This record gives sequence, C-alpha cells and structure tokens, in this order.
Amino acid sequence: MGERGASATAIVTARAAELAAQVDAAFDRLLAVPDDARRRLYEAMRHAAIGGGKRLRPLLVQAASDLFHIDREAALRVGLAIECIHVYSLIHDDLPAMDDDDMRRGKPTVHKAFDEATAILAGDCLHDLAFQILSDEGTHPDPFVRIELVRALALASGPAGMAGGQMMDLEAEKTRFDLATVTRLQNLKTGALIEVCVEAAAIMARLPAEARVPLHGYARDIGLAFQIADDLLDVEGDPALAGKALGKDAAAGKETFVSLLGVERARAQAAMLVDQAKAHLHGHGAEADLLRAIADYIVERDR
Amino acid sequence: MGERGASATAIVTARAAELAAQVDAAFDRLLAVPDDARRRLYEAMRHAAIGGGKRLRPLLVQAASDLFHIDREAALRVGLAIECIHVYSLIHDDLPAMDDDDMRRGKPTVHKAFDEATAILAGDCLHDLAFQILSDEGTHPDPFVRIELVRALALASGPAGMAGGQMMDLEAEKTRFDLATVTRLQNLKTGALIEVCVEAAAIMARLPAEARVPLHGYARDIGLAFQIADDLLDVEGDPALAGKALGKDAAAGKETFVSLLGVERARAQAAMLVDQAKAHLHGHGAEADLLRAIADYIVERDR
Repeated sequence: MGERGASATAIVTARAAELAAQVDAAFDRLLAVPDDARRRLYEAMRHAAIGGGKRLRPLLVQAASDLFHIDREAALRVGLAIECIHVYSLIHDDLPAMDDDDMRRGKPTVHKAFDEATAILAGDCLHDLAFQILSDEGTHPDPFVRIELVRALALASGPAGMAGGQMMDLEAEKTRFDLATVTRLQNLKTGALIEVCVEAAAIMARLPAEARVPLHGYARDIGLAFQIADDLLDVEGDPALAGKALGKDAAAGKETFVSLLGVERARAQAAMLVDQAKAHLHGHGAEADLLRAIADYIVERDR
Repeated sequence: MGERGASATAIVTARAAELAAQVDAAFDRLLAVPDDARRRLYEAMRHAAIGGGKRLRPLLVQAASDLFHIDREAALRVGLAIECIHVYSLIHDDLPAMDDDDMRRGKPTVHKAFDEATAILAGDCLHDLAFQILSDEGTHPDPFVRIELVRALALASGPAGMAGGQMMDLEAEKTRFDLATVTRLQNLKTGALIEVCVEAAAIMARLPAEARVPLHGYARDIGLAFQIADDLLDVEGDPALAGKALGKDAAAGKETFVSLLGVERARAQAAMLVDQAKAHLHGHGAEADLLRAIADYIVERDR
C-alpha cells in the first residue's frame, strides 16, 4: 500500500467509523423489536442491518453532501435509506436460489441464522423502509426534494438499475459475456446505487442538471473501480478478512474484469479510473477531499 | 346469490372489466421487454402482472376517487402502483420457502414458469416499480401529493403492514392464534393495502384528517369482510374457479375466521361488516354507489 493509499485509508476510516456508529444507532431506533408475532422479522432485519459492512454508500452521501454544506442529519438519513436498499439486496442475493452464500460480513447470512421465508420478508421490509425514510418529512423539509430522492432511488434499485444488473449476473453463468457487457452489468448491479449516493446530494443541493455531470462521472468511475477491486479480491483476497466466501465467480464460470483483462491490466484499469474520478472533482477544493480519499480507498481496501 | 348481490356483481364487473383492460395496457407499456440479458426478468414481471386477477385494488382507488372527482388517469396510475405491490407480494408469497404454490390466477406461479431466482427478482422489481410510478410527475402534478402517496404505500406494504402480516401468517403455522390475533394478522396482511387504496384518494383530494375517518372505517370493514370471504372460499370454493389451490389453511393447521367462528357465524360476521362498511358512506350520494357495490361484491364473489 503506497503513502497515498495509507493516508486515504486513514481519512476514510476515521470518518467511516464515526458514521458506522451513527448508522447502527439509527437502525437500532428504526428497528425496535415489537412484542408480537413479528418479532422474528425484526430480529432478522436487525441481524442484517446492524453492525457490519463498510457503510460505503452512507459515507458517499456524506462526502458528496460536504460539497454543498448539506445538513449532516439529512445526509445521514438519506444514506440510511440507500443502505437499506443495499442490505435488502444482500439478503436476497445470498438466498439459496440466488448466490447461495452462508456467510456475509463475518456472520451467518439471514436465511442461515433464521430461515428462507424470514429472509425474503426481511429483505422486502428493508426495501420498504428505504422509502419510508425518504418520504418522512424529518429527512428533508421540502416535499419536492423528498420525491426526487424517492424517484432516484426507485430507479437505481429496480430493473433499470441494481436488480436488472443482478438478473444479468444470473445470466452470466449461462452465457459468456464480453467486456462491454460485463461493464454494463456492473454499471447496473453496483454502479447505479453508488451513483445515486452522489445524485442524492445533488438533489438536496437542488443543483441544475448540467452541474451534476462531473459528480455522475466521479460516481461512475469509482463504481467500476470498486467492482474491479472486488473482482481482484475475489481472486486474491482472504476470506477471513472479507467475511464471506471468495473465488465464487471463477467457480461459476462467470466472466469478470479479472478473467477478461488479467490481474495486471485489471489493476491498471482500476488505478486509471480512480485518477479519472478525481479529475472530475477539479472544480472543488478541500471540501472534496473526502470524495478524493474514498476514490483512493476503494482500490486500496483489503475487503 | 340475492338480488342485491346480483346487481352489485353487475355494477362491479362492468367497471372492473373496463379497468382491467386499462391496467393490462399500462403494464404492457411499462414492462416493454428490453433486448438484453434482462429479457427473462421482464418476461417474468409480465407473466405475473398482465392478464389476471380481479384488480380489486385499482378498482377501489377508482371508486374512492369518484367521491372527489379526481382525475381518472391519476387514479389509474395510483391503482397501478398499489397493484404492483400486490403482485410482488403474490410472487414472493408463492415461493417454495413461503406458501409453496404452483398455480396463481389459473397460471403457473412465476417460480414454476421461470425459476426461483427470477421470481425473487421479478417481485423486487415490481416493488420498485410501484414507487417509480408514484414518484413520476405524470402521476400527479403536486410533489406533496406524490410524496404522501409514497409514504402511505411504503407504510402499508412494510413491516407495520402487509409484510408484517405475512410474517404473522408464517408464525400462525407454529402457534394457535385467537380471534383477536387473527383479526390483527389480517388487518395487516390484506387490510393495510386495501386501506391505502381509499387513503390514496383522500390524499389526492387533500382531505383533512378528520374527513378521512369514515373512509378508513369503510376500508377496514371491507378488508376484514374480504378476508372472511377468502377463508370461506378456502373451505367451500372451487379450485378451478379460484385458479389456485384451496384448503391450504386447514392442512397447515392455521386458525382462520372460519376455524374459529364456524361457517355460519363467519358468514354472518362478513355480512355485518359489509353493512357497517356501507353505513360509513351515509354522507355520500350516488357518487359512492361503486364503493357500496364493491362492499356487496366482496362477500358475493365466487373466487
């Protein structure tokens, strides 16, 4: 890890640790367990949502919100909503019918710790919770901002975004995808939700469309860099650090950035994307330092 | 079927047939199949969403909107959004890990016609589509109305509504519920989504809270009457007409209104609820006739 990476990691991990505690505390409040037959459902949601993960998406919302001096509480709640979608997608993706994973974030997956039916419902409920949070007037006083946030997230998580990418990923086991198709798959599967993190800040700042272009460029670039880093970790990483099974793409015969480009070219491509992502921020000063550090961190992380 | 029932069925089926064609046409437009690896996902969504069902929820939105002269196109789009949630819940409830049903609306369920992974994703995508529709400015010009619609639907479909009721339903196989608990279960599982149909009309009409009370009373009463009728059908109905397996609750050892009350008392309770539902509409004239006819129809239907 170079000096640039070391300092990026330090900057990111300090802010991320503070934020992770806030995210956990917020989920703890939102998911208070009721004293009725829904107890198991809430316990499953808590199992998945509390205490784990890098909280990269809430951190990105915070970092992009820094650019426009957006209220940190509003940014936290929007980050929580996006994290709800991320966590719901992990629960459903881990199901036996999908990726069939037993471990996630170093813990048993929800269907292992509970059962499949509870996992399906817990995912569905976190999916709703995202929109409950965004539509709450406590998140942002302006209904126009709230409805734009809902719209952006519903588009990013649905068939033209994350879930569409997951469908392509299932098909990738049956067909050999080329680099352009793998890129499109990943732009949908992970890119759309990463992009909506910075778009959310732009919505809260009521930024005109043309002023959003560099932010979208930044998000698209770090989204792909993130996925390439993930593909590299899947080949080279330590399952104990990652907290989940690795090497699954190769076993499933799926094409990835690493299988198509090789390790060295994939690593170079990720580094190029990080530089390009930071270049999109040239119009900003120190207020964009966290976004820059996140871009570096994404390819330096070891899990 | 009495004369009241016969005329209610005639009134409801005429309007429902017209509406069903509009719902199908709208889903056909919204779910145009893309020429890429997401084809199977869209085909699964179309399989579940197009051509089937009574479209009771869109019809209720129309009927409640009649009271306030709300634009029919807006009412149709809101009805579509609620139907998306209903259809997604059917796809997930039919999964092997949940109710394990092979037939729905006279067709193979989505996981039978496609596969489990596709069914999970198709449900997830219809879940998002609901919020995409509500947040679209084509649905209603006022962002405050749109965000209130999102909020009402996200609350009705989540852990404090439909999905919470589904969780209670899963627990009902393990515990013997009493009448109060079965009533609460059904108020959540089917009642919440029925209630949001009339609440949506109240939101579009920007009705003050106190003016919404009778509408909520109507919805709660027909929601329970609908469920009692469903429980009666589960015992007495014809699977060919119903288009799905029947007799499953008794086989699973679940308490229902019929198991707890017996057939005769259950039927009397449903009739009482229908009368009570219509009494909530006493302040309205002919503009509430469709709502009245729906209340009668709900207990007269044979599927």
